[in-house]
Amino acid sequence: MTPAFEHLQQQLKQLPGVGYRSAERIALSLLVEKPERLPALVKALEGAARSVRRCSRCGNLAEAELCPLCADERRDRSLVCVVEQVPDLVALERSGAYRGVYHVLHGKLSPIHGVAPEDLNFSTLFTRFAAGEVKELILALSNDVEGEATCHYLTSQLPADQAVAISRIGFGLPSGGGVLYADSVTLKSALDGRRTYS
Amino acid sequence: MTPAFEHLQQQLKQLPGVGYRSAERIALSLLVEKPERLPALVKALEGAARSVRRCSRCGNLAEAELCPLCADERRDRSLVCVVEQVPDLVALERSGAYRGVYHVLHGKLSPIHGVAPEDLNFSTLFTRFAAGEVKELILALSNDVEGEATCHYLTSQLPADQAVAISRIGFGLPSGGGVLYADSVTLKSALDGRRTYS
Repeated sequence: MTPAFEHLQQQLKQLPGVGYRSAERIALSLLVEKPERLPALVKALEGAARSVRRCSRCGNLAEAELCPLCADERRDRSLVCVVEQVPDLVALERSGAYRGVYHVLHGKLSPIHGVAPEDLNFSTLFTRFAAGEVKELILALSNDVEGEATCHYLTSQLPADQAVAISRIGFGLPSGGGVLYADSVTLKSALDGRRTYS
Repeated sequence: MTPAFEHLQQQLKQLPGVGYRSAERIALSLLVEKPERLPALVKALEGAARSVRRCSRCGNLAEAELCPLCADERRDRSLVCVVEQVPDLVALERSGAYRGVYHVLHGKLSPIHGVAPEDLNFSTLFTRFAAGEVKELILALSNDVEGEATCHYLTSQLPADQAVAISRIGFGLPSGGGVLYADSVTLKSALDGRRTYS
């Protein structure tokens, strides 16, 4: 195909979940089949790039000073769920199982990948703590060594004089998953995380 | 999420093969994880929209008067393969089995969908015929009623005084496909299209 077409295809291929063939299909769609959609897509991309920024309180996506969740009076601000990334927050919101607010770290501690505490969004979390608004903290971080290290660092930095309940989300079998199909590490987590059955 | 984010997600969801979840994942990637890719993508989209147009000879994508295939001296210009859409051409090129040139109709005749001969790119094909450069025509149109109607119309419009060999691509079992898994219409095509085995 033509150079501009191939350049577009290369750019599309770098999007998550888009392979060589999908990129070709999308490029053909935008240039041949539905060319009227291309300007709308460009406008949406530019609009989002221009107006979306980080919530100054929790680090989530925002178009104002605060994100829609932090600005929502109905959310319980004393309950804070700490997540690594915005997509984690989106997944938790999708579950509909949570009515508190969030704090997005934008990563997890990883000496191997050179991620130190100062690279993550810890400072605004400590500010929220200092303001005394946090009563309960749920650590929704990965079930891996780096998630563990991040939890450990975070709790070690919290002021000892505050009565804050801290928990970490449960690990174990996913919904619909049987013991037979779970890997050993998941099974170990599930055994460690067993609960009294009554 | 925020309005600009949701608008972008809506736009992305209209791309072929991109569902609600993929659109969300792509939007998050472009706004949070890899924001440096967004301007490059916008530039590629605008660049392609600006420079890609139709080849004046065959209807394929082009950045000059002629597409790379029509401009390529090594392609056999006496052999023309007629396809419905640019993606069909791309699929045939990918097979590496063809060394002639193409003609893209940009659709197929369909009274039900209101597609009449004047809506398709027939005129430049007849111009190519009139110029006497076409010696063989391969009709690579769909194996359906509309493909059949398009083939019939096309051949009925060709000047009778020219010695042009006309064929239609074969129908039958796809590569790797067994009789057991083929639907009845494919099997009928395959039986009708049987060839002497020697």
